[in-house]
Amino acid sequence: MSLGGGQGAARIGFTGATIDRADHLRGDPAAIAQAASSLSARLLRLDGIDPQLSDDGGLAWGSLAEASADAELLFLGLAEGKPRFVALPPEQADIDATSRTVWRVLPMLPAADAALYGAARSLVDWHARHRHCARCGNGTTLAKGGWQRNCTSCKAQHFPRTDPVVIMLGHHGDDVLLGRQHGWPDGRYSALAGFVEPGEAIEEAVRREIFEEAGIRAGAVHYVASQPWPFPSSLMIGCVAELITRDLTLDTTEIEDAIWATKADVRAALAGDPAAPFVAPPPFAIAHTLLVHWVADQG
Amino acid sequence: MSLGGGQGAARIGFTGATIDRADHLRGDPAAIAQAASSLSARLLRLDGIDPQLSDDGGLAWGSLAEASADAELLFLGLAEGKPRFVALPPEQADIDATSRTVWRVLPMLPAADAALYGAARSLVDWHARHRHCARCGNGTTLAKGGWQRNCTSCKAQHFPRTDPVVIMLGHHGDDVLLGRQHGWPDGRYSALAGFVEPGEAIEEAVRREIFEEAGIRAGAVHYVASQPWPFPSSLMIGCVAELITRDLTLDTTEIEDAIWATKADVRAALAGDPAAPFVAPPPFAIAHTLLVHWVADQG
Repeated sequence: MSLGGGQGAARIGFTGATIDRADHLRGDPAAIAQAASSLSARLLRLDGIDPQLSDDGGLAWGSLAEASADAELLFLGLAEGKPRFVALPPEQADIDATSRTVWRVLPMLPAADAALYGAARSLVDWHARHRHCARCGNGTTLAKGGWQRNCTSCKAQHFPRTDPVVIMLGHHGDDVLLGRQHGWPDGRYSALAGFVEPGEAIEEAVRREIFEEAGIRAGAVHYVASQPWPFPSSLMIGCVAELITRDLTLDTTEIEDAIWATKADVRAALAGDPAAPFVAPPPFAIAHTLLVHWVADQG
Repeated sequence: MSLGGGQGAARIGFTGATIDRADHLRGDPAAIAQAASSLSARLLRLDGIDPQLSDDGGLAWGSLAEASADAELLFLGLAEGKPRFVALPPEQADIDATSRTVWRVLPMLPAADAALYGAARSLVDWHARHRHCARCGNGTTLAKGGWQRNCTSCKAQHFPRTDPVVIMLGHHGDDVLLGRQHGWPDGRYSALAGFVEPGEAIEEAVRREIFEEAGIRAGAVHYVASQPWPFPSSLMIGCVAELITRDLTLDTTEIEDAIWATKADVRAALAGDPAAPFVAPPPFAIAHTLLVHWVADQG
């Protein structure tokens, strides 16, 4: 099954950005300054780190004059011929990354706007937590239009993080393994997931996480699709895994519970059927995409 | 084509670790201390950050008494029933990450040893460059057996980086697009590659990088295989991409040159034929795996 569309697969959340990241401008401080002083330059309007909406339901944009005079500006790229920036809040301002506003707004945003907001949010969050050099502790300054920070003392270069996470549906015959984390909404079950560690291939991380969380051994692993996840900056790598064993031994520090679900169970949950044995993850999460793929797969 | 083996595909470099990472012990300081004081505990012997070899050609291991008294110990996991550690060099010691020794040694190491060395190298390198808190600049201390550092002042938690990189063969009909970076060995051409940025799916990063480096538009992208690459801590995500256009416009700051190669060209290069139009990447690089996959693919 292709997830490229045409088979009823909805676009995966936070993908589909149409902005030109204009990498060739980032290394040219004069070009960035010129873009920032252009009358056409636009500033992404945020409430803290949450998106503001325009009257037409997309992201809200203002002029760069709205940024405080000493704000660091991050260059997002070019859209509709206009340079696009987001301002880094002052160091004193706390970013409330736990705000739930974004979850209410997200389903209403056009795909390209949600994707651009995701990139901006990850970038702002990284800068806010990386104003010092991890090597020597001294201050860092913004470089490459916001896609790098340089230490003022030891000259080390630092780049925004993107943390790869494997997220997977393990299956044993026609049953699929789902888990729920502590604190999730009532009844919600979803794919297992975990960070890829240094020294691991994707497939190895999938097998390790399934064994750690559920005590089950996995064999072949197949990649399905991926998604950037800006909370704060993950790359979700969606896979399916063939499970070799079936006895569950849960790591209850990682997950609260795990269940086996049939394709009929998953179809009912995706349809929002109140009689379904679990509540499916929301459509903008790649776990939802994996479940749609799983019930459609004839293999 | 499956890359799981059985079809002549060699194991991908730096994969195939057999160590149990024993995540359940990391969060238990008493268990880590007990493992470190066990007579069976073994210390990975390094020259700086390069591997030392034992008489039987594998990684060399010593006792924990070989580490300096004030060395921070990183817990790699359990292998053959023995706790395995690597010592973090003192802060004053420069790690020469440009040493070429590793390239001579790597092809001789058993796969599981190369994979374990890769994990250890990435971890040591990360700690050596992250002794301070990126948020406030103060000192950090090791936690979770070396899989975390905590700020002594603002209490921020920091985790080892794993940076996802897309590496891809673009093809136009039966021709494949290859590039060479500045400073590579004479004649070497390989897959294009670049870091996945915040806000991008894997497939989007593939298309952006091909356009940035070669000026060519790509359509469908297919995942092939992945590899951890410990220089210093990348996750290489290997893909093939269907190219829509064919006119090359090179970004010569990124790549020195690019060429089109036929399957016959690639077969000759993989065979080491001196008449081949380019020199193939080494077998432990996933670009080699992608080329093997490309010539075998009947699609």
